[in-house]
Amino acid sequence: MRAIDLVTEFPTVTVDTPVIDAARLLADQDLPGLIVVDERGRPLSILPGTQVLRLAVPTYCMDDPALARVVDEAHADLFLRSLAHRTVREALPEKPRELPVSGPDATVLELAALMARTHSPLVAVVEGGSVRGAVTLQALVDRLVRD
Amino acid sequence: MRAIDLVTEFPTVTVDTPVIDAARLLADQDLPGLIVVDERGRPLSILPGTQVLRLAVPTYCMDDPALARVVDEAHADLFLRSLAHRTVREALPEKPRELPVSGPDATVLELAALMARTHSPLVAVVEGGSVRGAVTLQALVDRLVRD
Repeated sequence: MRAIDLVTEFPTVTVDTPVIDAARLLADQDLPGLIVVDERGRPLSILPGTQVLRLAVPTYCMDDPALARVVDEAHADLFLRSLAHRTVREALPEKPRELPVSGPDATVLELAALMARTHSPLVAVVEGGSVRGAVTLQALVDRLVRD
Repeated sequence: MRAIDLVTEFPTVTVDTPVIDAARLLADQDLPGLIVVDERGRPLSILPGTQVLRLAVPTYCMDDPALARVVDEAHADLFLRSLAHRTVREALPEKPRELPVSGPDATVLELAALMARTHSPLVAVVEGGSVRGAVTLQALVDRLVRD
């Protein structure tokens, strides 16, 4: 069993995709995260859904839970919708980190280790330099429990 | 909009639940993670799916991607199924960390900040000391993109 046997088509976004479109993609297609590609279709980053969400939260609330608590309900709803002018670029991590990316020949063990190590619920599968699709945590766990 | 409006029933496990049962629960119910409760039903930990997966991977492969690569396909498949005698206890993080847990009155902003900060695709909602259910990233993002 290799990555190529578990890969599924997976939509990609670019750094210029509006965050609200990225959020719609997550919601509509029930995705665990997003693959961000450069202009040549190479993976630039893999964003777990939780990190897309990060953009909907003012910085002071991220750092201090008590501050999020004092924002009243009406304003809290507003914040969460204030994504209009932000793009995926702003959701990228500041420091480069290991990307959950594999070739088509990666074994289930490599995929599992990669997801666990990078805390990513998806691995982008790259072939010939561009993204072929993704192996999701769900697909890997399905495989794991099937006898 | 508060946690109580977004909460859904969510299965719980204990530290003694076999990892293979936990993995089945993830797979069968398509869950983003698991809520681990103590004997009184209080949340002890919230495990993202990626950290359940961690138990299927030998330690030396976690630390060094190159080592995972030298394990051949047949053995890689075997490793992934070698969960038989392990329990959820072994998947718990060694150091205590902030748990993605909220009360029923948490606003969407608090929930989003909590998920983003703890990198957790679910928040356990606790009422009267025990787990009432969870708000998933999916439910929150659905809410976010709905106008």
